[in-house]
Amino acid sequence: MDNKQWILNSFPKGDIKDSDLILKQSSIREIEESEILIRNIYLSLDPANRGWMSGQASYVDAMQIGDVMRGGTIGIVEKSNNEKISVGDYVSLMGGWQEYLISNGKGVQVIPKNTGLELSSFMSIMGMTGMTAYFGLLDITNPQPGETLVVSAAAGAVGSIVCQIGKIKGCRVIGISGSDEKCEWLKNDLNIDGVINYKKENVRAKLKELCPNGIDIYFENVGGKITEAVLTRMNIKGRIALCGLISGYNSETVLPGPAWGNLLIKRIKLQGFIVFDYQKRAMEAFQDLGKWIAEGKIKYKNDIIPGLENAVSAIKTLFSGENKGKLIIKVSEEK
Amino acid sequence: MDNKQWILNSFPKGDIKDSDLILKQSSIREIEESEILIRNIYLSLDPANRGWMSGQASYVDAMQIGDVMRGGTIGIVEKSNNEKISVGDYVSLMGGWQEYLISNGKGVQVIPKNTGLELSSFMSIMGMTGMTAYFGLLDITNPQPGETLVVSAAAGAVGSIVCQIGKIKGCRVIGISGSDEKCEWLKNDLNIDGVINYKKENVRAKLKELCPNGIDIYFENVGGKITEAVLTRMNIKGRIALCGLISGYNSETVLPGPAWGNLLIKRIKLQGFIVFDYQKRAMEAFQDLGKWIAEGKIKYKNDIIPGLENAVSAIKTLFSGENKGKLIIKVSEEK
Repeated sequence: MDNKQWILNSFPKGDIKDSDLILKQSSIREIEESEILIRNIYLSLDPANRGWMSGQASYVDAMQIGDVMRGGTIGIVEKSNNEKISVGDYVSLMGGWQEYLISNGKGVQVIPKNTGLELSSFMSIMGMTGMTAYFGLLDITNPQPGETLVVSAAAGAVGSIVCQIGKIKGCRVIGISGSDEKCEWLKNDLNIDGVINYKKENVRAKLKELCPNGIDIYFENVGGKITEAVLTRMNIKGRIALCGLISGYNSETVLPGPAWGNLLIKRIKLQGFIVFDYQKRAMEAFQDLGKWIAEGKIKYKNDIIPGLENAVSAIKTLFSGENKGKLIIKVSEEK
Repeated sequence: MDNKQWILNSFPKGDIKDSDLILKQSSIREIEESEILIRNIYLSLDPANRGWMSGQASYVDAMQIGDVMRGGTIGIVEKSNNEKISVGDYVSLMGGWQEYLISNGKGVQVIPKNTGLELSSFMSIMGMTGMTAYFGLLDITNPQPGETLVVSAAAGAVGSIVCQIGKIKGCRVIGISGSDEKCEWLKNDLNIDGVINYKKENVRAKLKELCPNGIDIYFENVGGKITEAVLTRMNIKGRIALCGLISGYNSETVLPGPAWGNLLIKRIKLQGFIVFDYQKRAMEAFQDLGKWIAEGKIKYKNDIIPGLENAVSAIKTLFSGENKGKLIIKVSEEK
């Protein structure tokens, strides 16, 4: 049977180039004992993908040249020799940038049926994206009513959920984003308290205006100059959830971080986290997130691009800030 | 009555210069209602003093030109119109760089008598220094038996106590210091597991050799290149107690910090702290520290320099690393 796969061809230097990934035609064998055949339907594109391509091990092993590009997917089981997973099941897994794959079932989660939720939502709000926002904000920063929360990449997949959980928890929420359109969406549709377009406005001056009582919590997605500006207004005993540093992901050298002086004198807690560490507590997040969706308290936006062949051009938009909401490639039809 | 006071004459730029502080002869008035007259005996010299002189408010108000130089002292009460404090009491307070002062009793702690401890120990192990080491290590990093603890400025007043509490808690303790003499003291007298002379050795290579299982806890006193080297070997879920950043205190510009990438992928908790925040929990520290001293499990070294007139030349040794243990100026005799 025919298959298409994106193969890592070179470790990107700086921005991802078209030649770093090659779309290869291949074939897929029959399944053996305990195995399942999965047809990928949705492929998740995330800032973290860039790190996985770097040739450096981090919280996951480094990808090697010639590997199928790593990525989270939702698929449907087309053949099964595995007792636990049936033909027709929708599944969530690290299924890679490819049309089909064979799995032994390890790391494969069956998606519940008849939830009333769109299948793609299990890749965003009801998937890793929702969990990242939920545990990063609640577990690491413990937001209290009346506190000021600043979110960078606020219109992104994770950031936009963080903003809304912050509002649910009674925080004053200020979002930093890169276009007027995104800022308007945050302000008018997600009802956050203030927005900053970092490409047009002076972030430091706007933070002063929008956070008159300082910043208690910072949800960090970006690094660089925005972080420096935020640090100057952090309050004593402030908390920073360190989720991502996208501004540096395409840099060819390791950029220095902000000085630690403010962290010291303000007694700030800064904590890095990786969503995979919360796998065992996933139900906590999904119970709350599901309830908030049902109550209309959380909105989410999936930016679905059809065609596996468009994955490389699409992932570049994450770094230029052109995508709108959770970026997903539609690899094949749901049915 | 005559008094001598060190007055802030200019905000230091870079290293403290002799002309930044001026020793002035003055006189002291009679005490009024509720007031006490204190004769300073010991004056504490600490890296944090440099920040207080910067003209920038931090966790304390900025000092102004013309102010008596701020500093922690131990003194004896020579006159009292205050019911709570008697003539002859030894007291601990922010008494400043001066021979005498008048206080209304606010912020003045009476030191217990007949403890069998040297009076100067209430300025080091049984004072702010001991509390800094105790709460910074135990409250922020929660060390567990078998974990590897790295301490920078390990032979300093705080660092040397951190090393010993780390050993009491069952950690493998590696100390970084700036001379062979200090390294030998740490290894032979304080019995820590490994030492690095950062002025002579390659810190990164030595950390690799001495921390084969990585670093679980870093007690940060210095900043700069040592911190960068430590971060590359931190383990997943590592903790960093951010106590000081002495390598940058004399810098005329704000130096960037290390990249945050390692904090993210290793899910590290970095937390700044200021000992003043633990004032209400002081007895927790002193009960344990007193017990450990009595059991011979903690040694401490006070580097006592006689003469208030030597305070400026003495404080410079903190930044050059020449002092040995807790640096104290003896302002007058105990009796």
